[in-house]
Amino acid sequence: MNDPQRKAVILLSGGLDSATVLALARDRGYACYALSLDYGQRHHAELNAARRVAEAGGAMAHKILPLALDVIGGSALTDSAIDVPEAGGEGIPVTYVPARNTVFLALALGWAEVLGATDLFVGVNAVDYSGYPDCRPAFIEAFEQLANLATKVGVEGGRFKVHAPLIRMSKAEIIRAGSALGVDYGLTVSCYQADADGVACGVCDSCRLRAEGFAAAGITDPTRYRV
Amino acid sequence: MNDPQRKAVILLSGGLDSATVLALARDRGYACYALSLDYGQRHHAELNAARRVAEAGGAMAHKILPLALDVIGGSALTDSAIDVPEAGGEGIPVTYVPARNTVFLALALGWAEVLGATDLFVGVNAVDYSGYPDCRPAFIEAFEQLANLATKVGVEGGRFKVHAPLIRMSKAEIIRAGSALGVDYGLTVSCYQADADGVACGVCDSCRLRAEGFAAAGITDPTRYRV
Repeated sequence: MNDPQRKAVILLSGGLDSATVLALARDRGYACYALSLDYGQRHHAELNAARRVAEAGGAMAHKILPLALDVIGGSALTDSAIDVPEAGGEGIPVTYVPARNTVFLALALGWAEVLGATDLFVGVNAVDYSGYPDCRPAFIEAFEQLANLATKVGVEGGRFKVHAPLIRMSKAEIIRAGSALGVDYGLTVSCYQADADGVACGVCDSCRLRAEGFAAAGITDPTRYRV
Repeated sequence: MNDPQRKAVILLSGGLDSATVLALARDRGYACYALSLDYGQRHHAELNAARRVAEAGGAMAHKILPLALDVIGGSALTDSAIDVPEAGGEGIPVTYVPARNTVFLALALGWAEVLGATDLFVGVNAVDYSGYPDCRPAFIEAFEQLANLATKVGVEGGRFKVHAPLIRMSKAEIIRAGSALGVDYGLTVSCYQADADGVACGVCDSCRLRAEGFAAAGITDPTRYRV
């Protein structure tokens, strides 16, 4: 158990994974500061979910930082000219957002410096990562090294830690861990194409992985699906 | 000389240093894509300067990406509750923006991926860096390593290069190099407190370093000062 006053910045998307991360960080005794990025997602269901999750998860504060990634384009998630595919396919998917986790962790690092925190939590996962390069353990380690060189705290001898507690867990393991800590997954949204009320499409990669995870965990899926 | 079609992303602030970097990148044969961040600076003189510099410097495209760093606060440059000091002082200055270069390079990396570029140029300088941790060579090298792990191109065997051509140059050397390539420094703004027309305060750290640089280079300073 850490000092109960020790602060951590949690990247919170409003999805299942980051809701679990928030619960794990709280369970480890951190005072949690949740950061969500409004990066030109096609809908705001995810950010509405992040607000609910931050509140239910006992975050000390929740900031939503607007980030116009559509200016640089290149992803089905931020560029309306690219369709989100229903099937999985091979290789790195079009839903990959260029340099997303690098950008998100950099912003979390900035807020951590302001708060005097040296712990960052991120819900990346190398099992279900569908080919995203910035979800691998080597990426997380490289970011940690960068953080120590990039910051005032690092220069002054502090050490940043990037916690990626889900990185080697299956979706079912994540759901079991969160459920044991009382996470209400009904508040979360995973779907790439959820409607404004958070009702999920049921057919995209993200919906499929989520549904399979609940089935494998033997836990009832609270998600509302359109199909 | 590189392939004339080879693309590079240039971080362009509208200041003296990044205007020089754009000229150096063009001189090395790159097709230059300039990226400026609108990160809650107190005025827009700098971004107006970036527009002029991108056009005069022959950039293929210039994007200005809004980035609400004021949401996380912590710097005199983005937080109006903190005064910009006139004198230098010791250690890391209050004008330090938490994790700024990490965030800016991450966004440049994202655009580079979209463009199919693997060269990034940034005008950081370790001589006049006034204690900014993210202007040191070790930081640049760590970012390059991160970029290769963070991206689709890196996964597929490509190699990113972060060029920081000014990193070991004095301000006078920078000004001489840019002048030799025809950079019009009258288009640039360095001042932390320039007015909307780009007229500089003449007393802040940035103005002082700039004026000393022109004097040391033996080149007439085209800056318009209020004092």
